[in-house]
Amino acid sequence: MEPQRQPMPTTDSTPSSSTQRIPVALGDRGYQIVVSTDTVASFATEIIQAVGDLSHALILADAAVASSIAAPLATSLSNRDIRVSTTEIPSGETSKSIAELARIWDWMLDQSTDRRSVVIAVGGGVTGDLAGFAAASYARGLRVVQIPTTLLSMVDSSVGGKTGINLAGAKNMVGAFWQPSLVLADTQTLTTLGQREYASGLAEVIKYGVIEDVKFFHWLEDNIPALVQRDPPAMREAIARSCLSKARVVGEDERETSGRRAILNYGHTFAHAIEATAGYGTWLHGEAVAIGMQMAAKLAFALGRVTDDLLARQTSLLSAAGLPISYDDADIPSMIDVMRRDKKVEHGKLRFVLPTKIGHVELVSDVDETLVAQVIADGAS
Amino acid sequence: MEPQRQPMPTTDSTPSSSTQRIPVALGDRGYQIVVSTDTVASFATEIIQAVGDLSHALILADAAVASSIAAPLATSLSNRDIRVSTTEIPSGETSKSIAELARIWDWMLDQSTDRRSVVIAVGGGVTGDLAGFAAASYARGLRVVQIPTTLLSMVDSSVGGKTGINLAGAKNMVGAFWQPSLVLADTQTLTTLGQREYASGLAEVIKYGVIEDVKFFHWLEDNIPALVQRDPPAMREAIARSCLSKARVVGEDERETSGRRAILNYGHTFAHAIEATAGYGTWLHGEAVAIGMQMAAKLAFALGRVTDDLLARQTSLLSAAGLPISYDDADIPSMIDVMRRDKKVEHGKLRFVLPTKIGHVELVSDVDETLVAQVIADGAS
Repeated sequence: MEPQRQPMPTTDSTPSSSTQRIPVALGDRGYQIVVSTDTVASFATEIIQAVGDLSHALILADAAVASSIAAPLATSLSNRDIRVSTTEIPSGETSKSIAELARIWDWMLDQSTDRRSVVIAVGGGVTGDLAGFAAASYARGLRVVQIPTTLLSMVDSSVGGKTGINLAGAKNMVGAFWQPSLVLADTQTLTTLGQREYASGLAEVIKYGVIEDVKFFHWLEDNIPALVQRDPPAMREAIARSCLSKARVVGEDERETSGRRAILNYGHTFAHAIEATAGYGTWLHGEAVAIGMQMAAKLAFALGRVTDDLLARQTSLLSAAGLPISYDDADIPSMIDVMRRDKKVEHGKLRFVLPTKIGHVELVSDVDETLVAQVIADGAS
Repeated sequence: MEPQRQPMPTTDSTPSSSTQRIPVALGDRGYQIVVSTDTVASFATEIIQAVGDLSHALILADAAVASSIAAPLATSLSNRDIRVSTTEIPSGETSKSIAELARIWDWMLDQSTDRRSVVIAVGGGVTGDLAGFAAASYARGLRVVQIPTTLLSMVDSSVGGKTGINLAGAKNMVGAFWQPSLVLADTQTLTTLGQREYASGLAEVIKYGVIEDVKFFHWLEDNIPALVQRDPPAMREAIARSCLSKARVVGEDERETSGRRAILNYGHTFAHAIEATAGYGTWLHGEAVAIGMQMAAKLAFALGRVTDDLLARQTSLLSAAGLPISYDDADIPSMIDVMRRDKKVEHGKLRFVLPTKIGHVELVSDVDETLVAQVIADGAS
C-alpha cells in the first residue's frame, strides 16, 4: 500500500523541469498525482489518458482561475470533440454551502450529466471540496479530476479523497470520501497566487516534516529561501514530498478508521478553533495551522513530550516561510468551547496530535483543559 | 460472496414464527437482514448487539409510524441510558428533497451528532433513502440501521445500500452507495399498511421470481392467496426470499459497475417513465413497476425472446396480487422522451432488461424506439 514515485526523490532540488508522477496506492481507487511546471497546455491529454472514455466534461472552476486555466482547458477538450460544460464557483469559503451545492446539482442535471460524465475541479480547496462532493453524490458517484491551483490544495485537500461542504458554524461537516481519478499540480498555476495564500500552503508543507518525515524537515530548513522565492524545482520537490507523505498516511487509513490518518490533524484542533472564533477569513487556513502547530508544540513541551529544540526549529521554519507564529487576541474560553464540539472529538473527550520528536507525532487523549488554556495564553504572549 | 441464511428456506410457508436472519455478504460492509413477526419490542436489543457501542441514536421516522414504532423504540433505547434524538419525516416522495436533507443535516448538527452516532431510519423507502443519505454524508459517514415499515422497502430499498434524494423532475439523482449496519423487517409493522401500498410491494416480490429465481416464482404462484391475506409465515418467506435474491445480485455488483445489478431494473425503465409522465403519485411505485414489467415482457415477446407463456403467467400473478397490468392513458411520446433522459442511459442509447424465460433476464441495448412505442400502445389496449 505504500505509495512510490518515479523517479525517486533527490534530497536537493534540481534545475531539471522533469515531471514527477506519484501513484497513490488505494487498490482499485488508486490514482496518480502529476507534479510539473509549465504543462497546463497538456492537461487535456493527461486527463483523456487517465479517464479513458471521456465524452462529457463538467468543469467547475474557481472564478479567479476561470479565464486563465479553465477556459483554455475547455477549448482544448472541445477541440477533441469532447462535450464541455463549465460553471464558475465564486471564490471563498462561503461557496462550500448547501445553496451552492444545490445549484451545482441542478446545473449538472440541466447539462444532461450521466454516469460517464467526468467532473474537473479547477481551483483551490473550496472548489476541490465542493466539486468533489458534487461528483461523489451526483448519480451516486462520478469520476473527478482535481486541478489544484493553490499550494495549500496541492499539498493537502487534493490528496486523500476528503470532499465536502460546511454547515452554519461547522466546517466540512457534510461530505464523502471520494478519490479522484487524477490530480494535476502544476507550479505555473501558483505564479499569480498572493503572498499570504502561498505562505499558507507552506504551513501544511512544514507540517509533513514534523509529523512523519524528518529528512524532509531538514530539506526544508535548507531550502526554505528557494521555496519562498517560488523556485520551480524547489516547489516541485516540496509538493511531491508533501503529497508522498500524505499519500503514505492516507494509504494506511483511507477512511479515518484506524486512527493513523489523525496525525494529519497536527495543529488543526487549535487551528479550527482559531478560525471559528476569529471569524472565518480573519486568518487563512494555513496561517491558523501555523499558529496551531506552535500551540501543539508548546502543549507537547508542557507535557514533557519534547525538548524545546523542536519548538525552536519549528518556529524558525514557520517564520522563514512568512507565517504567523502567535495569536495575540485569542479568545481562550471560546476556543476551548469550539474544541469540545470538534467532529473529531469522540464521546466528548479533548484529543490532540502531539510530537515526540521531529518526524513523529502521537494521538494524546484526555488532555487537561487548564493546560490547553495556558498554552493558548502563552501563544498570545 | 453469495448470501446465505440460517435456517435454509423451505419451499412452503410454515406456521412457525421463527425469525430468519439473512447475512448480506459485502466484505467489511456486510450486514444482516432480520425478518420476523411480533419482535418490535426487541428492536433495541437487536440494534445494540449489531452496532456494539451505541451511545447516541438519531431516529428519523416517517410521520405515519412515529408514534406506533419509533416512539416505543426511543423509550426502549433511553431506558438503556442511550441518548436519543428523534425527528419526523413528512410522509411522501416530496420529502426526498434538498430542503428536507438540509433540514436534517442542520438538525443533526444541533443534536451534537458525532462520528459514533447511529442513524435509525423508521419508515418506507422515502425515509430510508433520505435518512440513509444523511447518514452517508454527515461527518462523511455514520452507521445506519434500516427499519423498513412497508413491504416495498423491506424487499427493495432497504437492501443494497442505495440512498439518495430527488432533484426537480429527476428521481434518486443525488445520493450515495451506503450499506446499513442492520435491517430489521418485522411483518407486524405491515398490519396497518393500506391495500394499494401492500400490493405495490408485491410487484417487486414477483419481479425477483421473474429475473433470477424460477423456484420462487413457482412458490409465489402457489402462495399468492396467503400473501394477499397477509399470512405472517407467507410474508416472512416472501420477504426473506426477495431479500436473498436482491442480496445475491448486489453481492455480485455492489456499485453497479459490472452491469449485473441492472437486472434489478426489470420493468423499471418503463415504470420510471410512467411515474414521471403520469405525475408522481398517480401510480404507486410498485403499480408502475407491475405495468412496466408487463410492457417489458411484451417487448421481449415482440423481439422473439420469450414465448407468450411467460407473459400469461406474469399477468396472472400480478393480477392475483391486486396489481394493475395495463395503463390506458399512457402518453407515449413523453414516456419515450423520459426514457432517453434516464440516468441509466449511457451515451444516449435506450436499454431494457428483458426476460428470456422465467428466472432469467438479460440487458438488451439499442432497442428500436418504434417497437417501444408499439409495446406501450399495446399495454394501453
